[in-house]
Amino acid sequence: MAISEQKRTFQLHLQDLSDHNPAFLETIYALANGHLGVRASDPLQGNSHAVTGMPGLFVNGFYDLSQISYGEKYAGYPENNQTIAQLPDPRYLVIEIDGQRSDEATFTTRLVDKNLDLETGLLNELFEITTPGGKMLQLSLSTFASQADDAIFGESYTVRPLNFSGSVKLYKQHPYIDQVFDRESDPRAVVRKNGLDRQYLSADFPAMQITTQRSQLGLVLMWRYLGEDSLVHFDQNDGMPRYVMDLDLEQGLAESFDFGYSVGDIHSLMDVAMNHATYLKEANNHLEHHSFSSLFTESARQMQAFWRDADIQIEGDPESQKGIRFNLFHLHQSAGHDGHTSIPAKGLTGAGYEGHYFWDTEMFMLPAFIYTDPDRAKQILMYRFQTLDSARQQARDYGLDSGALFPWRTINGSEASPYFPAGLAQMHINADIAYAVAEYVAVTDDQTFLAEAGFEIILETARFWQRMGSFGVDGPQGGHFVLNKVTGPDEYTALVNNNYYTNRLAQHNLRLAVIFAKQLQAVGSDKLEALGVTDKELADFSHSADEMYLPFDKELGVKMQDDGAFNMPIWPFDQTPRDDYPLLLHYHPLRLYSHQVNKQADTLMSDFLFPEDQDIEQLKRDFDYYEPITTHDSSLSRAIFSVLANRIRAHHKAYRYIAESMLTDLNNSQGNSQDGIHVGNMGASWMEMVFGVAGMQRTKSGLVFSPHLPTQWMGLGFKIKYRDEQVEVHVTRSQTQFTLVHGNGLTLTCDDQKVTLNESTPTVVVDLVDK
Amino acid sequence: MAISEQKRTFQLHLQDLSDHNPAFLETIYALANGHLGVRASDPLQGNSHAVTGMPGLFVNGFYDLSQISYGEKYAGYPENNQTIAQLPDPRYLVIEIDGQRSDEATFTTRLVDKNLDLETGLLNELFEITTPGGKMLQLSLSTFASQADDAIFGESYTVRPLNFSGSVKLYKQHPYIDQVFDRESDPRAVVRKNGLDRQYLSADFPAMQITTQRSQLGLVLMWRYLGEDSLVHFDQNDGMPRYVMDLDLEQGLAESFDFGYSVGDIHSLMDVAMNHATYLKEANNHLEHHSFSSLFTESARQMQAFWRDADIQIEGDPESQKGIRFNLFHLHQSAGHDGHTSIPAKGLTGAGYEGHYFWDTEMFMLPAFIYTDPDRAKQILMYRFQTLDSARQQARDYGLDSGALFPWRTINGSEASPYFPAGLAQMHINADIAYAVAEYVAVTDDQTFLAEAGFEIILETARFWQRMGSFGVDGPQGGHFVLNKVTGPDEYTALVNNNYYTNRLAQHNLRLAVIFAKQLQAVGSDKLEALGVTDKELADFSHSADEMYLPFDKELGVKMQDDGAFNMPIWPFDQTPRDDYPLLLHYHPLRLYSHQVNKQADTLMSDFLFPEDQDIEQLKRDFDYYEPITTHDSSLSRAIFSVLANRIRAHHKAYRYIAESMLTDLNNSQGNSQDGIHVGNMGASWMEMVFGVAGMQRTKSGLVFSPHLPTQWMGLGFKIKYRDEQVEVHVTRSQTQFTLVHGNGLTLTCDDQKVTLNESTPTVVVDLVDK
Repeated sequence: MAISEQKRTFQLHLQDLSDHNPAFLETIYALANGHLGVRASDPLQGNSHAVTGMPGLFVNGFYDLSQISYGEKYAGYPENNQTIAQLPDPRYLVIEIDGQRSDEATFTTRLVDKNLDLETGLLNELFEITTPGGKMLQLSLSTFASQADDAIFGESYTVRPLNFSGSVKLYKQHPYIDQVFDRESDPRAVVRKNGLDRQYLSADFPAMQITTQRSQLGLVLMWRYLGEDSLVHFDQNDGMPRYVMDLDLEQGLAESFDFGYSVGDIHSLMDVAMNHATYLKEANNHLEHHSFSSLFTESARQMQAFWRDADIQIEGDPESQKGIRFNLFHLHQSAGHDGHTSIPAKGLTGAGYEGHYFWDTEMFMLPAFIYTDPDRAKQILMYRFQTLDSARQQARDYGLDSGALFPWRTINGSEASPYFPAGLAQMHINADIAYAVAEYVAVTDDQTFLAEAGFEIILETARFWQRMGSFGVDGPQGGHFVLNKVTGPDEYTALVNNNYYTNRLAQHNLRLAVIFAKQLQAVGSDKLEALGVTDKELADFSHSADEMYLPFDKELGVKMQDDGAFNMPIWPFDQTPRDDYPLLLHYHPLRLYSHQVNKQADTLMSDFLFPEDQDIEQLKRDFDYYEPITTHDSSLSRAIFSVLANRIRAHHKAYRYIAESMLTDLNNSQGNSQDGIHVGNMGASWMEMVFGVAGMQRTKSGLVFSPHLPTQWMGLGFKIKYRDEQVEVHVTRSQTQFTLVHGNGLTLTCDDQKVTLNESTPTVVVDLVDK
Repeated sequence: MAISEQKRTFQLHLQDLSDHNPAFLETIYALANGHLGVRASDPLQGNSHAVTGMPGLFVNGFYDLSQISYGEKYAGYPENNQTIAQLPDPRYLVIEIDGQRSDEATFTTRLVDKNLDLETGLLNELFEITTPGGKMLQLSLSTFASQADDAIFGESYTVRPLNFSGSVKLYKQHPYIDQVFDRESDPRAVVRKNGLDRQYLSADFPAMQITTQRSQLGLVLMWRYLGEDSLVHFDQNDGMPRYVMDLDLEQGLAESFDFGYSVGDIHSLMDVAMNHATYLKEANNHLEHHSFSSLFTESARQMQAFWRDADIQIEGDPESQKGIRFNLFHLHQSAGHDGHTSIPAKGLTGAGYEGHYFWDTEMFMLPAFIYTDPDRAKQILMYRFQTLDSARQQARDYGLDSGALFPWRTINGSEASPYFPAGLAQMHINADIAYAVAEYVAVTDDQTFLAEAGFEIILETARFWQRMGSFGVDGPQGGHFVLNKVTGPDEYTALVNNNYYTNRLAQHNLRLAVIFAKQLQAVGSDKLEALGVTDKELADFSHSADEMYLPFDKELGVKMQDDGAFNMPIWPFDQTPRDDYPLLLHYHPLRLYSHQVNKQADTLMSDFLFPEDQDIEQLKRDFDYYEPITTHDSSLSRAIFSVLANRIRAHHKAYRYIAESMLTDLNNSQGNSQDGIHVGNMGASWMEMVFGVAGMQRTKSGLVFSPHLPTQWMGLGFKIKYRDEQVEVHVTRSQTQFTLVHGNGLTLTCDDQKVTLNESTPTVVVDLVDK
């Protein structure tokens, strides 16, 4: 089915959403491009003093510091929180009618319609504005965050008087510099106290330099009218630069105005202070001599290129189709691509999680990029390489004489988690990053990246495990390499010894260091010497990896989440009211920690990542043990269960998990989408399709597929890149079709059948076996 | 040796102290009486606006609340800190000479001498005051906190011009209501933000009502001149009541003035607002028609009665003699005795630990009271009974449908620890309190207390363990009763499964509930029915206790601190600089938690409490394992090691621990005595003497002694009360003499020899066996 035929499933229409809470809609319809993100707020509210909603412009990596306050503060605790700045909403507009201004009097804004065209990234909105005097005006607004030039946010306003003719004035101005709101319902949401400074810059359009007080960063923000209308003029009002539109409108007739915002790169405070004239010129270059439509066309072209590689078609289930496209759209929008930024857990759609990067990026979002947009995957990994020195410092501060420990949550590369049992203790992030580096290299064969950045990440994280771990002396751990007092992905269990997932990933991390060191050695790289790698060190890595302790309950034949996990009582699920979920908002952490209850896949996450570790019987035992004690309070959980359910051929269950997770944000099923989208979940839904439904696995001998289409669907189609090839996969209930889209050809496996694609045989169809 | 002959060892003279840091001296010479405590600050600084030092009046149980700020706050975290109020310093005096006032100009105060007579509780101080103009004045000050009437603090000032004759004015006034200082060096020291209000009360002497804003408590504070001198008059200065002394002094000739302060009981804010006239009258009754000397004589008489029962004589070692007397003095001074207050960890000598009560009270301070002042021991336990409802609420909040969980640190009975891994998780406090109740009952045979209060404490704490624990299913814990995710006394290890100490104490707690329930049943008490105790419940308690899991390393033959403890690497002591102790101020908790390193006796604390649990060989193995990994960063640690060293006949080592711990505050060996004394350590030094040197143990068949005098000493003498008897014990190197001081007689055991004391044979001498 061609994309054009599915046009409707590229449209996200207001009527598709059951939740019309304004803050929720602000998130869902937010537009971003990896550099900037803008919430879809009421345009009359966005920068008013009596603001409602949670409007704002977010710039990836633009944050301030604020001191963390602790009840008791111990040595080595982070001093500062890092919080993404919530900058003035570019959609903001002031309307003046009969001398009454919308930023002073109470104008009513009724949302009439909202439609996001996922295919081009254009958001169209229609509002009905009523003045206190009863005059009504229709306001339509088209916006996009440029995918072609990430400095740009484009806007086209149209106003039409509905019940009057007369004078209307419009102002494009931003009197307030910061948009900060206290939110207290979620313990992970810290009260934000950014200190932003503004300086207006001299130009014939409004421009300002915005700087942060404690992190000492700065950028240039400017906007210009994109047109020639003489009714629009630039002026300064008490020193505040603005555009004023002085109109005489006739009832029923519309007038339009286009604006472009340019958000410059992030510089140091010093730099921006010295060079703001240069930076302003650069920012202006993005807009000058451009029109809304020329800018939009460029952007839409890039957006379509994205869909060409990344689209997933779900046939016979329009809701899931829309869901996956919505997820892919936001995943793409959220990803930094300059090597200095990554993907915030909430994208650039809200201030949730302070705009921090977590392990989700590498473990849940990156796979989609690796297989559809490897360049961007590389940039995301480069962010970790750029912050490796901070990770080294964290390992030193922790008391280790070598190695690196990546922060659990961060923007600038330093740890920002104030709660170490579910922060610093989640050291698995180190091995997660190493895992992701290796996956990227394996899929792309990007040896340059490996030699220049990837190996150093893997080596330094391996060194951390080697120093942090030790050999047990007692019980089943005796003689084995053990990792004590860590927290795994499941944050309902903390500070345990030998978390299965952590140990297994650390083992992988240590082995990767040895494998890649030997590869580099083989090609005569001088990297090993430069990094001080010795044969002795590699031998130690191998020994620790070989002796890594992996807790296992022999009686049950189940992998144990950690030492002692199975001696905890099972959480009293039958006495837990439905309203008490997510549990962490209702029960003391200590109560959760002393029970068997999982927030998300933990040990099963290891089974997911390492299919070669277990046969299907083992996987079944693990799955059956952990499923009943998992609450899926994390949006990262269900996708893993879905993929594994497919592997154990519990296909109905696999589909149920897809259905429950695909629309996490569209249905606000976590109940906090107003604070931002769940990008990890969005990446995970790509995994559900490709790793789950299509059953794709990367093995030493290449890609292997084991597809099984849910009975609710007619077909599943997607493309993946592997080395220099691009392959289109189309799964139906009876067969799977593989088509070489790009490249010289490759051999893959589908249900034990070899599939060889090349120029002469670009398409092969495999009949599905009964599973 | 009679006390009078040892007069010198009752004097704590400035020259005895090597540390003359003013804040340290403020603590060491602080005077208290269980209700109020006053630091021995510079009398010219105490309530000035440019205050130096840490002056203040503390009233046991008089605290305010302040909201705790968390980096991340989870469900069930305490909302509020409780902080003892630091009230105006009653020693404060303003001197005016030549129109210059000591609260406005910079007068110099040189401390000439300070001497505390421990025997009577009188503190004499001599200061040399120099005005900015060079006039010099000698100020001597005698103070006491009345042991006879705990509302009273008495003061006698004497001034003598040294180099001039002329007019001198003195003021007794308190312009400031609060004395608050930020201290940041210790993470456990929270920045205090009390909100105190003051209202002056109408009287012909200065009086005020002081109330707290958030905890809504109030008390009356007043002072009066105790004399008839017409040079002293009461007036109001801009509404502030004060005494003014208008003197014409001749060089070299002294003039004296006596004042009495009365600090009323704590009431609710509402109560004190309604009844302040009554309360003021009560407060005044303590002082009116009294003189300094009549009040002091009453107090000294009580102090002497205290020494008669509680003194410990160490012969041949004046330093230790002074040390133990200093410790006993402060222990006595610090103890609440109204059934509504307990003993703050720093006594009433400073704001350290916020004035909170911890487990130290029951486990380290109470034994001295049980054996020397059982009435006060009962009052201290009654405090727990009074707060049992809060403990029940804490168990409910934790999710248990019955039982009680006492707070780790508190004033008002609610948890005030902001750091649950070393707060709420230290659930052993529940069993510690139950243990203390049982010890008190066993020693005093106070069946009334047991029936009316003690049993309910023991029952409710046992119910907590029964609900909180569960049966293990896996490994050596399988089938056993396990307690997961708790923290033992050693705070360098946290959130472990089956902490030996906790499990053993909980086992004891469960058994105590059964034993006492059956005792009450036997005497036909209706208590069991009233408390809903069933035979089934008691059977469950017994079953859980019998199956309690106690971790043990069979290979090493050593009791394990917890599951997995021995698989942690040993802390790298050889790479730890001396300045890095105490470790918790220099290393991240997670780093400590993942190593074998003990802040204080943990498993050994169980060996100490339950000598019947192990033979001497087992005790040796435990001792030898834990001693090298213990830093004694807690002042509670060395005493336990000392007692146990005596039990394993490592007598030299036992003495070394005594020498290192006896003078903890006098030598400021923890480095933080300026924040207050270490009362737990002081109680522990009583234990070192009686349980250690004299080797006293309470067994089912009565008291057993196994004395061994350090070779450095000539003798050790003390008295203990047991049931209705009081016995004096005197240990020398060759023999021990037991004398019945009071009562009808009893039989005890000394080195396997029965000793029967009665009216006809009040004294028995036992020759020491070689150990």
